[in-house]
Amino acid sequence: MLTKDDFYWMAKAIQLAKKGLYTTSPNPRVGCVLVKSGQVIGEGFHLKAGELHAERNAIADANNKGHITKGATAYVTLEPCSHHGRTPPCADGLIEAGIQRVVVGMVDPNPQVDSKGVAKLQAAGIEIDTLCLAQDCEQLNLGFTKRMRTGLPYVRLKLAASIDGRTAMADGESKWITGPQARADVQHYRAQSCAIISGSGTVEVDQPALNVRKSELTSYPTDDVRQPLRVIIDSKKKVSASNRFFSHNSPTLFVGISAERPELPDNVTYRQVASKRVRGEDKVDLTDVLAYLATQGINDVWVEAGAHMAGAFIEADLVDELIIYQAPLLMGEQTFGLVNLPETDSLALAHRWSYQSVTQIGEDLKLILHKKG
Amino acid sequence: MLTKDDFYWMAKAIQLAKKGLYTTSPNPRVGCVLVKSGQVIGEGFHLKAGELHAERNAIADANNKGHITKGATAYVTLEPCSHHGRTPPCADGLIEAGIQRVVVGMVDPNPQVDSKGVAKLQAAGIEIDTLCLAQDCEQLNLGFTKRMRTGLPYVRLKLAASIDGRTAMADGESKWITGPQARADVQHYRAQSCAIISGSGTVEVDQPALNVRKSELTSYPTDDVRQPLRVIIDSKKKVSASNRFFSHNSPTLFVGISAERPELPDNVTYRQVASKRVRGEDKVDLTDVLAYLATQGINDVWVEAGAHMAGAFIEADLVDELIIYQAPLLMGEQTFGLVNLPETDSLALAHRWSYQSVTQIGEDLKLILHKKG
Repeated sequence: MLTKDDFYWMAKAIQLAKKGLYTTSPNPRVGCVLVKSGQVIGEGFHLKAGELHAERNAIADANNKGHITKGATAYVTLEPCSHHGRTPPCADGLIEAGIQRVVVGMVDPNPQVDSKGVAKLQAAGIEIDTLCLAQDCEQLNLGFTKRMRTGLPYVRLKLAASIDGRTAMADGESKWITGPQARADVQHYRAQSCAIISGSGTVEVDQPALNVRKSELTSYPTDDVRQPLRVIIDSKKKVSASNRFFSHNSPTLFVGISAERPELPDNVTYRQVASKRVRGEDKVDLTDVLAYLATQGINDVWVEAGAHMAGAFIEADLVDELIIYQAPLLMGEQTFGLVNLPETDSLALAHRWSYQSVTQIGEDLKLILHKKG
Repeated sequence: MLTKDDFYWMAKAIQLAKKGLYTTSPNPRVGCVLVKSGQVIGEGFHLKAGELHAERNAIADANNKGHITKGATAYVTLEPCSHHGRTPPCADGLIEAGIQRVVVGMVDPNPQVDSKGVAKLQAAGIEIDTLCLAQDCEQLNLGFTKRMRTGLPYVRLKLAASIDGRTAMADGESKWITGPQARADVQHYRAQSCAIISGSGTVEVDQPALNVRKSELTSYPTDDVRQPLRVIIDSKKKVSASNRFFSHNSPTLFVGISAERPELPDNVTYRQVASKRVRGEDKVDLTDVLAYLATQGINDVWVEAGAHMAGAFIEADLVDELIIYQAPLLMGEQTFGLVNLPETDSLALAHRWSYQSVTQIGEDLKLILHKKG
């Protein structure tokens, strides 16, 4: 039975979990608070893969401060693990620490855990309450949860345009359509993503870094920055090895439908994926790309691409969330548009979304939309 | 010297003034509250041209209720008039009623009044305070104020589009891009405008009514609906007399550059206006149209037109306020765009605005933008 206090402590555990927003990939973000006699005796969160999980960090914190964990209640945003990974099971740690009650935010969707952690704790005589602020806990790990449940990562598609939906002048000029605040916000999303997807056309023309610049983030929990995997969908455009894109030391993967590896710098991985016939042309099957990325532990994907690639993701119905930065400009029709979609003769077939959040960010608007369900 | 109480009573007068939002044209919306010993003794607002002004209505209300107006304070959103129009000067009315003090929201920008009302009251020994909630009072009459100060009406340009700035499918299908709430909001704007401007191309293709439908407004203060003047910019498109546009009994004006009246139903007025050379073509000079409309008492203009006409108003820098209804759809590039603007090769020349307000209206967003100043 959950009480008002339980929600209070779980909210604190969620705040702790968020400290791992940029760094836990491919693991989920998890926070843990140990409470005894109405007082916090230990706090912990998961920082990065290979290091201790939130529960063991919280127990160590309590011990370091001279507290006795026996008899305490543990608040954990995600069900404690029951299996041996790179670190020993957290369920064992909680049992060894003499924890009396565990309040769980959400059950782990990982088939290797999936209520086995809860079962193990219960078998040890620990009192359990689950689904405490479950929706908020799930928000911490939209990608991890989706990957575990469906075998596909959570996909955010980033778009930036004027009010009339234009992205660049006729000569290609597109710098500074949106302001510095919007661009810093993009850094925040890149930093929390496991992979950034773009197209070889964009790489060829814009030579983007597609990396995380720590200086543009307000806080980062480690000295080193975790650089997300850059995934470039190769539509057979030649990308010159001298392209500035390759001068950044992010891990980089090119995917294409050709069995033969294109000419690419040695530190770039190439992978052949399935092809799909789209209006008479063989194209990269984007679903296959995402499924492959999921097997590599990619939870959250950030797509930052041109109108064709953006349109292809939308047409294939692979986008969970649209993030649109809308600058207060009118640019007119003799410019580049936001998304290319196949011609349909019916509005009923237009891609319908719903506004989830609208905020002003600098002089621009930031719109978040979800697929209309 | 204004006190906290003065702002309270002026806010009440502003609420009263809003009751005339749909009907006072070409007059301004004005509200008046009479207060004595901390109690309201009379309330009034201006309902429509030719009928009594707010001050005289408030005095009559006090008299009807058996109150003595001598010694009261009058709160008026706009400076009382000092000249004989269709009704006698309100300044005289306040003096005759023995009003002791008058608090004025804003000074009348009408050159026929412009502080002469205040001077007349002061000469009669009445205590005066001005600029009480002046900005809010000015919001009541943006069009009237702009017309008095500049000789041009206040222009709102209405646009409706998908997130990617598209207005219709390739075959022209555009119905129901935005939802019923957005369409009802358009009725609210039409009803408060003195004129609705569109182009003959839009009339030819869409056969719009461009009128006010009382059933779609939540409140309307009179039995009859004031139908705004429909102003059609004639770019030499033939509009057939059988067009449904002509079946509505709104006053209608066609403006064009030809000296010769085109074939139009008898109850439609035609006026030749100045022409302007735009990229090698003679076009209607929109500034001349607006200046003419101002001489006819048109304060607030609502432009509801296609991408060419919308672009022409923006290019000529004649728009005070953009009102954009944005539906949560993506339609792709093989569709119609929002505004046509001349090609420029520099983003610096793009038309910059600033967001004033963003609200959700049904499933759509309503964006209000002002010209970046």
